[in-house]
Amino acid sequence: MATVNKNFEKLASGYLFPEIARRTAVWQKSNPNADILRLGIGNTTEALPPAVCTAMHEKIDALSDRATYSGYGDEQGDTYLREELVRYYDRYGVCLQASEFFISDGAKSDAANLQDIFSTDNVVAVQDPAYPVYVDSNVVAGRTGLFDKNRGRYNGFVYLECSEENGFIPSPPKEKVDLIYLCSPNNPTGAVMTKEQLKGFVDYALENKSVIIFDSAYSEYITEEGYPRSIYEVEGAQKCAIEINSFSKSSGFTGVRLGWTIVPKALECEDAKAGLLNSLWNRRQCTFFNGASNIAQAGGFAALSGDGYQQSRDLIDYYMENARLIREGLERVGLTVYGGVNSPYIWAKAPNNMPSWDFFDLLLDSCHVVVTPGAGFGPAGEGFVRVSSYGHRENVEKAIASIEENLKI
Amino acid sequence: MATVNKNFEKLASGYLFPEIARRTAVWQKSNPNADILRLGIGNTTEALPPAVCTAMHEKIDALSDRATYSGYGDEQGDTYLREELVRYYDRYGVCLQASEFFISDGAKSDAANLQDIFSTDNVVAVQDPAYPVYVDSNVVAGRTGLFDKNRGRYNGFVYLECSEENGFIPSPPKEKVDLIYLCSPNNPTGAVMTKEQLKGFVDYALENKSVIIFDSAYSEYITEEGYPRSIYEVEGAQKCAIEINSFSKSSGFTGVRLGWTIVPKALECEDAKAGLLNSLWNRRQCTFFNGASNIAQAGGFAALSGDGYQQSRDLIDYYMENARLIREGLERVGLTVYGGVNSPYIWAKAPNNMPSWDFFDLLLDSCHVVVTPGAGFGPAGEGFVRVSSYGHRENVEKAIASIEENLKI
Repeated sequence: MATVNKNFEKLASGYLFPEIARRTAVWQKSNPNADILRLGIGNTTEALPPAVCTAMHEKIDALSDRATYSGYGDEQGDTYLREELVRYYDRYGVCLQASEFFISDGAKSDAANLQDIFSTDNVVAVQDPAYPVYVDSNVVAGRTGLFDKNRGRYNGFVYLECSEENGFIPSPPKEKVDLIYLCSPNNPTGAVMTKEQLKGFVDYALENKSVIIFDSAYSEYITEEGYPRSIYEVEGAQKCAIEINSFSKSSGFTGVRLGWTIVPKALECEDAKAGLLNSLWNRRQCTFFNGASNIAQAGGFAALSGDGYQQSRDLIDYYMENARLIREGLERVGLTVYGGVNSPYIWAKAPNNMPSWDFFDLLLDSCHVVVTPGAGFGPAGEGFVRVSSYGHRENVEKAIASIEENLKI
Repeated sequence: MATVNKNFEKLASGYLFPEIARRTAVWQKSNPNADILRLGIGNTTEALPPAVCTAMHEKIDALSDRATYSGYGDEQGDTYLREELVRYYDRYGVCLQASEFFISDGAKSDAANLQDIFSTDNVVAVQDPAYPVYVDSNVVAGRTGLFDKNRGRYNGFVYLECSEENGFIPSPPKEKVDLIYLCSPNNPTGAVMTKEQLKGFVDYALENKSVIIFDSAYSEYITEEGYPRSIYEVEGAQKCAIEINSFSKSSGFTGVRLGWTIVPKALECEDAKAGLLNSLWNRRQCTFFNGASNIAQAGGFAALSGDGYQQSRDLIDYYMENARLIREGLERVGLTVYGGVNSPYIWAKAPNNMPSWDFFDLLLDSCHVVVTPGAGFGPAGEGFVRVSSYGHRENVEKAIASIEENLKI
């Protein structure tokens, strides 16, 4: 008599983005002629870099010839790509080995799967608000009690509140925790951690033998000087942190699918000497995964170097110009906004203490603009919405014009 | 103080194929001039079907233009591909809906991840020998006790022995089990289940409210009439079975990465009414996965229909001719062989009661041929090796000639 994983029942609600899609579809049905302007999901909209396309075309040509065809690659990813990533980090003064890199089909999979190599009784700390995957994957794995509707939080988790008061950068937890998820530049708040702030977490982790899972998927969006792109720019971080990154946002690979995770050989924890966590993740990937698409890997290599890197930078500049337009437009209508400087996300405060989903509905209804309700990222996101700068320039301009014209606050 | 998932410690040994790669590399090092002939890992070697390449080139062209670019797709896969799969199954008289299909990056991931939606106290039955992923993923999830070295088996699993006596097709378990992994055509034995044999398992599952996880990754290799390609050809199977399949072996997508899983809406178990398991897998995929590569999906669509399907069939014919050459060659040197008729794998009995790994070493040493030791698939695989028909024809011919010339038994 097969029975199901009861932890799924604890999940508080449908995954955020499908829920937005559902609400938007319902609204579109009753307003069939309305032109919806989407600044919701962080989905890239501009063409792939030409050098990336060329490299992927060449890879397909290689696969179309038996002399150059290749099938299964290494589960950890192709060596040439892992070695290029070593050189990429070297630019920021971070020294890693190819065997510390694991290529995957994207940062979301890794962010969700990494918890697999840790004990289910580990106490997890997450930023609040946070990308829902950190929370939901740990709920499914059984690291929480029930969802407490009054607090809007899961029992058993430690929440690190990100608020206007702390500039959306929390301090390390007061209590002892085992796993800490950090994201900088942050999704959804757009806040970016200084080296000093990151060092606070690294010191905490070293002292408490905790492991930090650091999501740097937006590192290429840092435009101001002095912010670390990798947690390994902080001394000692290789002993206590795993880093996740992706080609999705830096080179438009959201649909192509490619990411990477770094598990340093130096990483250790309470019952794992240096080397063990690297080999556990290796074993996990060899058992549960069969490597990323070789076509995507060829594209990823091209995105890291030469013309492909410059073309990727141009893509980011395009989205960051959108971010500027959104930020300034929202400020003009009198909204308080954060982020959008070292991040593609603008974190906008709903007017008049309005709840997130009400502001979502108001923007959809009156301006035909879709954003992401902050409450979907955790209770501390209540009262905010995330506005994404991914979109064609003309649509972003239309959306901002529509908000300026139609939003009554 | 972070601690690790101790279940990893139970894993009896390194994953089989990395271990073969390691042994082969060591041997190559001491025999640098030897030309190793690989009939080990089931890795495709022939060019991708031209129609698949055309479709993927076209998709990249679409991604290189902002007017036709697309980013994140649905986590469940693109609708056009799911609908094409509905039509593919319809050819075999199997009626399914698009919402019952989940496109993934390959059958290995799904085979490993499906256990996630079931309770950790479910009792798992596997064929012995079996593809190691079924076993290892459940060990990591904590569904076993320790590995018993004397029996060569994990405590807590139920093993369904596949032997010469039962034609490598086991009967349903005598005891009650909750999850049953079945693979037909079988990897590694090459045995294929009749409808009657499959029906025995479906009846067992319906009676005991068990769930069958049916791996049909080699279904396109069935050449003889009367064997079901899908478990859903058996009446009632939609109530008790999940099916996994892949483009890897049918169309050479081992490196491109694309597969699918079917969780019927009718599927139920002890505490899950019809519909719940479908929605649990949907939730799991939406949380832990971000969809398969859109380039691979475009290729997969082309592989299912028109020229692409015929070209895929031609690929299979090519490998099956290899299978015939291997089977007949091994028979000529006096080995007892099974499989290779409805499957790309030949299951060869080691001579003189030799253990699998000894026969592996003998074939490598004396013939320079790499095969896969049967013991790597479970203790009942001891005394056999799996010979793969994936390879260039000229290499297969060389390998068989070398065995005929050099193998002394």
